[in-house]
Amino acid sequence: MSASTALLTDRYELTMLDAALRDGTASRHCVFELFARRLPGGRRFGVVGGTGRLLGLLRDFRFGDDELRYLRDADVVSPEAVAYLESYRFQGSIAGYREGELYFPGSPILTVEGSFADAVILETVALSVMNHDSAVATAAARMSIAAGDRPLAEMGSRRAGESSAVAAARMAYIAGFGATSNLEAGRRWGIPTMGTAAHSWTLLHDSEEDAFRAQVEALGPETTLLVDTYDIARGVETAIAVAGTGLGGVRIDSGDLPAVAATVRAQLDALGATGTRITVTSDLDEYAIAALAASPVDAYGVGTSVVTGSGHPTAGMVYKLVARQDAAGGWVSVAKTAEGKGSQGGRKSAFRSLDAGVATQELVEIADGFEQLAQPGDHPDARPLQVPLVVDGEPVSDHEGAAGVESARKHHLRVREELPIRALALSRSDPAIPTVYLDA
Amino acid sequence: MSASTALLTDRYELTMLDAALRDGTASRHCVFELFARRLPGGRRFGVVGGTGRLLGLLRDFRFGDDELRYLRDADVVSPEAVAYLESYRFQGSIAGYREGELYFPGSPILTVEGSFADAVILETVALSVMNHDSAVATAAARMSIAAGDRPLAEMGSRRAGESSAVAAARMAYIAGFGATSNLEAGRRWGIPTMGTAAHSWTLLHDSEEDAFRAQVEALGPETTLLVDTYDIARGVETAIAVAGTGLGGVRIDSGDLPAVAATVRAQLDALGATGTRITVTSDLDEYAIAALAASPVDAYGVGTSVVTGSGHPTAGMVYKLVARQDAAGGWVSVAKTAEGKGSQGGRKSAFRSLDAGVATQELVEIADGFEQLAQPGDHPDARPLQVPLVVDGEPVSDHEGAAGVESARKHHLRVREELPIRALALSRSDPAIPTVYLDA
Repeated sequence: MSASTALLTDRYELTMLDAALRDGTASRHCVFELFARRLPGGRRFGVVGGTGRLLGLLRDFRFGDDELRYLRDADVVSPEAVAYLESYRFQGSIAGYREGELYFPGSPILTVEGSFADAVILETVALSVMNHDSAVATAAARMSIAAGDRPLAEMGSRRAGESSAVAAARMAYIAGFGATSNLEAGRRWGIPTMGTAAHSWTLLHDSEEDAFRAQVEALGPETTLLVDTYDIARGVETAIAVAGTGLGGVRIDSGDLPAVAATVRAQLDALGATGTRITVTSDLDEYAIAALAASPVDAYGVGTSVVTGSGHPTAGMVYKLVARQDAAGGWVSVAKTAEGKGSQGGRKSAFRSLDAGVATQELVEIADGFEQLAQPGDHPDARPLQVPLVVDGEPVSDHEGAAGVESARKHHLRVREELPIRALALSRSDPAIPTVYLDA
Repeated sequence: MSASTALLTDRYELTMLDAALRDGTASRHCVFELFARRLPGGRRFGVVGGTGRLLGLLRDFRFGDDELRYLRDADVVSPEAVAYLESYRFQGSIAGYREGELYFPGSPILTVEGSFADAVILETVALSVMNHDSAVATAAARMSIAAGDRPLAEMGSRRAGESSAVAAARMAYIAGFGATSNLEAGRRWGIPTMGTAAHSWTLLHDSEEDAFRAQVEALGPETTLLVDTYDIARGVETAIAVAGTGLGGVRIDSGDLPAVAATVRAQLDALGATGTRITVTSDLDEYAIAALAASPVDAYGVGTSVVTGSGHPTAGMVYKLVARQDAAGGWVSVAKTAEGKGSQGGRKSAFRSLDAGVATQELVEIADGFEQLAQPGDHPDARPLQVPLVVDGEPVSDHEGAAGVESARKHHLRVREELPIRALALSRSDPAIPTVYLDA
């Protein structure tokens, strides 16, 4: 496996680069925009995810010997293009929404500026990261809202590609989860990890009692015992008999959860284990979590639904050329106009209008060139949404690593407070606030 | 980023290992099985994906300094467990279905044998790979069936996590696609790549004609021109004016495809470009492909739907302990019995019963120990389904790399021929053949 990320790229980007080197358009200054035409699934807001990871991948976006040899041997591009790529490194600039920020249809989530050659070949890697991570973040935020103050853990690694699983753990944490089962996410970004035992632990032993005793000896009575391998009532009884009434928690991974949770709570209380917590983990999504709000559940573990975006595994964002220089060096706004997939040309600046701290609209100001762009102070009742992410090829390191994760999480939890109440409902609807375009 | 895959693991696997080292059960010989309780989405068959990749990841499943330091510093496991993991390498054996093979509910897709310590910690990495790759493979096979003899290209990298995208390109190819847009998949496994230009190519130029001319000069008249940036009829006219009637193809990425394809075909024919192919690429899935069967379309490009498993992004496979030694060294079949998630204990051998070359049932023979397992010759009218994948810790290299991909693809296309006709329908139904359990 190569450490380079440069071939996480669709072939047509290099084909275009090749042709552009020949006809001289490769050096035209361009503005590409990454945005979503709509929010998937009738959701009311989206959550931007992936920014910090993308900046890390950009650092490794260099064509090394392996990559160049492949492009040459497989005749992907001309020898001239191979020579150009040998010294390629992105030298343009990227501004965009902070990770964890909310987005709406048309929000200019990333604005990539540079020569055509510089910017065109980032299309696939940028979209892969942002589409996946934003899909997970958006689903996770809905679950976090549904869970209220009860802690949520992400444990879906097994239901996602092995690398996407690590990214998903990161996004769930940014969007409000408290922990993950994924150890690589713990190692890489310092995200808290959790987990005690699977059914195989109980089945490995000659009896459930043996299994519980060994676990309590190893992990202490504050551990969580999985009580549903055989019969839940017997499992709870054995758990308390072995660990005592100071047992930290029991986990239930099957059955009709509202009914089971109530029964288990009553049983624990009757046994005197009034402080023993109940964690449920069986195929939860935001709707199941909401339906358990009145049940005596202390914590949720969420797997498949969070890592797969709860029915919407990709955010559907696109990467489009919106402005470029013409042959004379002037600025031209450009957009595809064919049916159904039109987009808004022009470079944009974006603000979230607020009324007494509550978001009222996504304000997107369009300019043809750079000079006329709205500046942060231009809309005093609105919060500017774009920050510099890459400046002249250099990623702004604040957004990367464990510190980037913590700051994205804080930012997300803070800006979520700006949502109008109606945005918190789980049912399908329109975006919570309208996107309003202004000509600068 | 670390090259080790050892922390693509849920924390509870290491917690169990830790406790098992203390109570002596870590060395108990165990059999874990990876299988699916059901086929997602009312599908009629599943396609096994990921085997070859998993074997590669197992080679890197070692705990290096970074991993051990994290486990120690974050107090994930005891110092004794850290010491054990320092020299960990999987020393057990894995048998299973070949990549590209079909599977049904209960098919023993992987059987992992070894000590509890050996086998328990592979759960997450094995499931991540197999769940993701099988979900893509199953969706891709349905699309390949719907497309019939028309070539299919995978171009969904931008709608999947950047590493999952590479894996998805590989699986689509194994399941019958002819090419991918993903260059890393081309480099890594020699999969044919394709792609010419995006809308940004046309928008970069001062006119569509300039863009087409530059592309034809760079790539020759056999290239494919994207004709729907502005007006499709004008785009087609310009394309032929620039490239001549020998133009290789036009691509259409928007609009009502059956109507548009018919109009464009008529226009191309009227212009004398009777050999110019039409490729369509707009939000296709297996249903849209089937609906285009009677339209004059020459090739399909599929994005989002194939990389996201067409509505089912994970195959829902599980990894369960099915047999183990007891304290006396005898074999015990084990299974969770709680509501809804029961499974079939015991080690299994699997055969596909055939009648005149057509599959009639998935025959799964269950044994308590090893000695009584059915052997390949035991069912003369059935094809044995399990092959050795890892023997005493050593991956069988036939399944890895570019050669593994080609052989999986051939195997898939061959065994797909065994499906009864009813299995080829796209509508929701039961599995095409029943799974029948026999006691050995």
